[in-house]
Order: sequence, then C-alpha cells, then structure tokens
Amino acid sequence: MIEKLVKRNKIYNGSIIDVFCDKVKLSNGFITSREYLSHPGAAAVLPFLDKKNIVLVKQYRYPINQITYEIPAGKIDKSENPFECALRELEEETGYKVKKMKKLLLFHPTVAFSTELIYIYVAFGLEKGMKKTDNDEFVEQKVLNFNSAIKMVKSGKITDAKTIIALLYMENILKRS
Amino acid sequence: MIEKLVKRNKIYNGSIIDVFCDKVKLSNGFITSREYLSHPGAAAVLPFLDKKNIVLVKQYRYPINQITYEIPAGKIDKSENPFECALRELEEETGYKVKKMKKLLLFHPTVAFSTELIYIYVAFGLEKGMKKTDNDEFVEQKVLNFNSAIKMVKSGKITDAKTIIALLYMENILKRS
Repeated sequence: MIEKLVKRNKIYNGSIIDVFCDKVKLSNGFITSREYLSHPGAAAVLPFLDKKNIVLVKQYRYPINQITYEIPAGKIDKSENPFECALRELEEETGYKVKKMKKLLLFHPTVAFSTELIYIYVAFGLEKGMKKTDNDEFVEQKVLNFNSAIKMVKSGKITDAKTIIALLYMENILKRS
Repeated sequence: MIEKLVKRNKIYNGSIIDVFCDKVKLSNGFITSREYLSHPGAAAVLPFLDKKNIVLVKQYRYPINQITYEIPAGKIDKSENPFECALRELEEETGYKVKKMKKLLLFHPTVAFSTELIYIYVAFGLEKGMKKTDNDEFVEQKVLNFNSAIKMVKSGKITDAKTIIALLYMENILKRS
C-alpha cells in the first residue's frame, strides 16, 4: 500500500498554509501526484477549573463564518515541544497557568490532505496567569459545566474536532471512574 | 467578533485543494487577511455488520505516511446530499449497501484554516453491494469488534478525527442504552 516519494514540489508558500504536490510511485509501480498541506502540528488542552467546570475559548472563525467554543490550542513553535505549546496556549488564551497536565491522545484532523497532528492534554489545578493574544485575535474565555459542554456536542453547538474529541474522551474516562 | 469580507482572493487552484487569502475587516475596524482552504464538505458512516462488529477501511495516507483505519468517507459531489454521499462511499469502499442509516453529528475538522464540514452517520443492516475504487486508491475493508476499535483509539492505533469522533460518540450512546 505504501507510496514512495519520487519528487517533492512546493507549489504554494503561504503565511499559514504551505501546499505541496509531490510526484509519488504507487505500490503497483504507477506514478501519480499527491496534493497536501504541510503543518508543524498543534497542541490543545482541556482545562478543568474545578471538578465540574471547564474553561473554553469563544472566538470567531472566518473560514466557517461562525463563533465557536474550543479548547485552548495552537500551532507548535520551533522552539518548543507539544507539552510546552499546550501550557503556553492555555495561558495566552485563557489567562490561566496550570500545575498538573496529562496527555490524553493524539489525532490527525485531516488525513486525506494535511500532515497536521494534534496532541490533546487535560489540565487540573488552574492558577491566575497572564492572558496575551495577537493583535488580530479576539478570544473570550468561557467557564462551562462539563456536562453542559457534552450536551453542546450532542446538540451541535460545539462542532470543532479537537474539542469534541477531548470532551468525549474525558466523558468516557469519568464514567469509568 | 464577526469579521467582514472586503475582497475575496483565490490564490491557488489545485486538483483537491483551493486556497483563498481574503481581505477582511475586523470588529475593531482594522483590515487584515485570512488564508484558508475551500472544501465542498464530506460525509462518513460508521457501519455495523452486526451487534458487535463494525467495518473499517484500511488504507495508506500519503500526507501522514501511515496506514490508517478509518470509517468509510468521502467528498460530497455536486449532484448529491450528505446522506447520499455516505451511502455511495460506504458501498464504493467496503462493498456493502445499507438498509438503515441515521445521522449522529456534524463537525469541522480544522476551523482555523478550512471550510470543511463532515456529516457522520451510523448504519445498521448491511447487505452485499459492489465495491468500486479509483485507479490510484487502494483500500481494504476490515471487520473489527466495536470494543477492539475503542481500544485502538485509546492505544493510538486509530488517529483519524472522523473515526475517533464516530466511535466515541457511539460508545456513549451504547453505554446509556
């Protein structure tokens, strides 16, 4: 099944999106092309304020023209690992630092046309830190009851992949304990 | 929070990826640009062969250089709705037709830089149909116990977003019933 790289071709160099169209050899020997985005990876964290409440981030997302509720997340910088990225994004987007953080799982949001891998963590024991967002980034923190957030997944009010995965995964852990 | 379109700019016209970099007006009046992919949307289905077993699709995914286990899925064609797309992809990728199919939820895999919306269904009562894949598409159907698939999510063997969401969502429904 494996496909082998014959020639790498970068065809678009964007500010957040780089597009490649590689020439590849299929397992049957045929040559074809594969178009995809290159992405540095991201880290995200589901932060518990206390036993029942979590902190989500409310923001407008231009590509889907909707205001979303998401767990804090962002692209991994060259100078950091996924754990450090999740800690940084949590503080920048919500103003909370954290004592304890644990990895939940990794996932690929779009295996068909992107290299992106997202690391998901869960955090407990939040402390006041320093909120800091980019000039063109408007985010509001939103404290929500965990069970209400699960209902928002089921009613279609939360539609973001990383947020749905973190919430459903944690729900399963909490039900078992 | 809402951002308004000032000028739409298509900057790359690919075979599966179209990239836009629109000029937009922020809520504070400032002008900036937003880079994103345009995507027609997709439909996916978690197919139950019987009460305990599901059918997944095993295939090589070039962008992540891995063999994945995924629920059958694909892009929505211009001539069909999401329900029809899920039925078609199920039969093309696994060779099964279906009697009963129900919507589970919708989600956005990458809200930061893509318009893509994925409809997820669950199907019961599979019947033999006709498998049919593209010339450069090599997919194998794989029958798996539902609980084993949940374990593959937890152990990191299943990493595809739509597949994780469908499995965890169904697990929660089955636990409640």
